[in-house]
Amino acid sequence: MLNVVTGNEAVEIIRNTVQKLNPATEKVNIIDSTGHVISEDITAVESIPPFDRSTVDGYAVCAEDTFGAGEAIPAELECAGAVAMGSPAELEIHRGQCAEILTGGMLPRGANAVVMVENTRKELDSCLVYSGVAPGENIAKKGSDIIAGDAAVKKGTMIGPSTVGVLSALGIYDVPVFKKPVIAVISTGDEIVTGTPENGQIRDINTYLLASCAEKAGCEVYSYGSVKDDRELITDAVKKCVEAADAVLISGGSSAGSMDMTCGILNGLGTVYFHGIAIKPGKPTIFASVNGKPVFGLPGHPLAAYFVFRLFVTEYLRALLNRPGDKPFTRARLSKNVPSNHGREEFICVKFDSSGHAQPLYTKSGIISVLAQADGFICIPRESEGLDAGTEVSIYSL
Amino acid sequence: MLNVVTGNEAVEIIRNTVQKLNPATEKVNIIDSTGHVISEDITAVESIPPFDRSTVDGYAVCAEDTFGAGEAIPAELECAGAVAMGSPAELEIHRGQCAEILTGGMLPRGANAVVMVENTRKELDSCLVYSGVAPGENIAKKGSDIIAGDAAVKKGTMIGPSTVGVLSALGIYDVPVFKKPVIAVISTGDEIVTGTPENGQIRDINTYLLASCAEKAGCEVYSYGSVKDDRELITDAVKKCVEAADAVLISGGSSAGSMDMTCGILNGLGTVYFHGIAIKPGKPTIFASVNGKPVFGLPGHPLAAYFVFRLFVTEYLRALLNRPGDKPFTRARLSKNVPSNHGREEFICVKFDSSGHAQPLYTKSGIISVLAQADGFICIPRESEGLDAGTEVSIYSL
Repeated sequence: MLNVVTGNEAVEIIRNTVQKLNPATEKVNIIDSTGHVISEDITAVESIPPFDRSTVDGYAVCAEDTFGAGEAIPAELECAGAVAMGSPAELEIHRGQCAEILTGGMLPRGANAVVMVENTRKELDSCLVYSGVAPGENIAKKGSDIIAGDAAVKKGTMIGPSTVGVLSALGIYDVPVFKKPVIAVISTGDEIVTGTPENGQIRDINTYLLASCAEKAGCEVYSYGSVKDDRELITDAVKKCVEAADAVLISGGSSAGSMDMTCGILNGLGTVYFHGIAIKPGKPTIFASVNGKPVFGLPGHPLAAYFVFRLFVTEYLRALLNRPGDKPFTRARLSKNVPSNHGREEFICVKFDSSGHAQPLYTKSGIISVLAQADGFICIPRESEGLDAGTEVSIYSL
Repeated sequence: MLNVVTGNEAVEIIRNTVQKLNPATEKVNIIDSTGHVISEDITAVESIPPFDRSTVDGYAVCAEDTFGAGEAIPAELECAGAVAMGSPAELEIHRGQCAEILTGGMLPRGANAVVMVENTRKELDSCLVYSGVAPGENIAKKGSDIIAGDAAVKKGTMIGPSTVGVLSALGIYDVPVFKKPVIAVISTGDEIVTGTPENGQIRDINTYLLASCAEKAGCEVYSYGSVKDDRELITDAVKKCVEAADAVLISGGSSAGSMDMTCGILNGLGTVYFHGIAIKPGKPTIFASVNGKPVFGLPGHPLAAYFVFRLFVTEYLRALLNRPGDKPFTRARLSKNVPSNHGREEFICVKFDSSGHAQPLYTKSGIISVLAQADGFICIPRESEGLDAGTEVSIYSL
């Protein structure tokens, strides 16, 4: 069975399938919310700052009283008092008056500007102002950062410091987030072992690699470990993982035959949507649904498995959690020609050289170390015959 | 007391102080290692792959036997057997022979290339090869990914999928890492409240913002909460935090006076290295050491506190954990003039516009929402009078 699709078709199929899923949500305390994804649009219920605030230490004034003031002819204003931090400004000032105020203090009624303390001299009951200020000067107006009613945080935002900042400013301490999806990881292959390999065997890389990918993508991991290329063992593993997780990644075996077996198993347990994507690396990829849960069959080759995670499993997460689409993080010129005539979309790791050019990292075995050296990757379209040195390309993050 | 330094001087002082510290290390299981920092250089004790492997499904051959083979005149080779996956290749082939092999299989002795199955036809006891291969073709040589003795992972590497991949390939399941530094966070200010603010009060942002920054930077957080601008309360808070954590961040109060009080307290408890950095935002920053633990006094303004974390607290972590230095992630041209004549190094958030130019994000109060909109920030040197539209600038990640 072979149902090969293009990369774009694969993404569309994944998104369509995932749109029928209803991801679970929960509330987490803001202090534990970093790394979670916001599950609903959050509207500001109040303005930030909540009142006109001074942005400097100095004197709140009627700006008009300071017009024309200078070193030689200071304006003399009567001191009406001091604004206490953290208390409502009960003071009101009138023309000819001023009030002491600290950074962050609430502007008293009647004032429309603040003179910096450096430009003043305190006298007994008055203050000399040596520099004029315009109305609004040194004031952060109520709502100048966020206005009540604004969309403050969008559904699908991955929470980091800036989101936490906005949430805390708005007093949202119980944060609505998606439950972290649980991703199950299975490695298959007769030659795959955990522990010391005998001659002809190699160590299980994909279990750890894909678990780390899933964790970095904001998921919980259910690590099943490695199983031999055996129909019963793999069937059993898939069933257990579908039970325990929200999605399943099953990587390897290393040959076309074993991927066919995995495909057959998935076809028996659920629906296979495609088997094969016209990309390099990563062609022998399977996407299926078992009991309504997405199951990805990934290539056994670690670099290929990584790319399939990066390109397609993340699309599942994006669709599920409403996260924004993939965007290149920069553009750069190629340091050398990149041939390509595979009729497959091709993904190549690149590294910035000392002059800022993107240098393609070729690797024959390319098991894993190329990923550690790369600064990003480029995509060569399916219809392209390759790219010339000097071509400007989009660089995607790994 | 005022001891103002430049940004570079601040970094140097921080690094010098931190170099005397001896960060704790531990071993974590590879499956839990993502986000930790490697605490020692790791040398590969074996080669990856550990033997010559086939990179395709097909037939292991002596390449010389296939020279000149083509569609019209296939080479006919005797089938000596099949390489079993995960077992030592006990087969040896001789000239005129071939052996079935799957992707990842161990190359049998005597073979020096693999013909893809697509270019062959199996007969009863022989195989017809329709395409010549060169010696080494379709083989990943032993050590082609990592050679035994290579520096496989550097001390100071933050563990992500690619590192986990290398570690698992090498069988390093107990990973030597630095213990996550514990960062204590204190907010101060009479106007700062957690919960519903009265008129004149504002919500504590910095506790949550800095906790999130610390968590994203790979630290554990000890959140002390907010305290009023009171000498005894702040002294008590600093003492408790120095006891409980590896480093302390104390942000606010909002005025020069309260930063002076914090500085005085730190001076009494330990050594203050500087008070004031010639940067904008972030000038009223303090760096001190109490009982050998770094204590940072950060500005009360959330955006300024964020920048001081991003620019200076991260330098403490870099020095402590041997992490690589700060590097811009891309360069772009400015969309408009950026004035600057402050005699202070200036950091300005930017956002990429639709044509890929870096657009400076100005904000008067700029409490926090500007961070959520920005794609990165630029740095304007202290001696610069500003930058013209079209100037190419380095963009740093937030």
